[in-house]
Amino acid sequence: MPSEAIADGIARQMMWGDRVMICRLTFAPGVVTATHSHPHEQIVLVERGRVRFTVDGRDYLASAGDIIHFRSGCLHGAAILDEETVLIDIFSPIREDFLPAPGL
Amino acid sequence: MPSEAIADGIARQMMWGDRVMICRLTFAPGVVTATHSHPHEQIVLVERGRVRFTVDGRDYLASAGDIIHFRSGCLHGAAILDEETVLIDIFSPIREDFLPAPGL
Repeated sequence: MPSEAIADGIARQMMWGDRVMICRLTFAPGVVTATHSHPHEQIVLVERGRVRFTVDGRDYLASAGDIIHFRSGCLHGAAILDEETVLIDIFSPIREDFLPAPGL
Repeated sequence: MPSEAIADGIARQMMWGDRVMICRLTFAPGVVTATHSHPHEQIVLVERGRVRFTVDGRDYLASAGDIIHFRSGCLHGAAILDEETVLIDIFSPIREDFLPAPGL
């Protein structure tokens, strides 16, 4: 799968079907994603690295092999710690907002 | 997540939400799963090892880092090659047939 730089220090690979979307994200050390929410259920697998997740105001430290579940609508964000970190984000339904524009 | 022996040479860890189920399966070398189908969409991540998938009568060799999509209803099976292999199966909707019986 091709990798696309989607923000400073964040590269993304994506694959999706009818009901599930998988995004494999590589983060530079120290990247922080803004707290946000969406109706899509999300499960995150930590492939490597270390990250502090914030979920509905509580912090959780996670590292390689950990798995995290974000319920639909929960408020969540991530702060990458001191090493390059790879997360596999799994969404259902698919994030239509991530899809390439038609015709591209 | 606890690991459960579900068949000879197959151990499973599971996590699920409302719409997505993740199963991490560890296979002994040489295990073959019977060809089958289900209405659930399935995406498989090969974490490590080597496996030959059969999908609707065609064979595909896959190894660590590969990702495979099984559409709803497709006929698929897997033959593990000569090393222990770990697959991450992602289903939507969740496999109700995999859930623990109520009361357990």
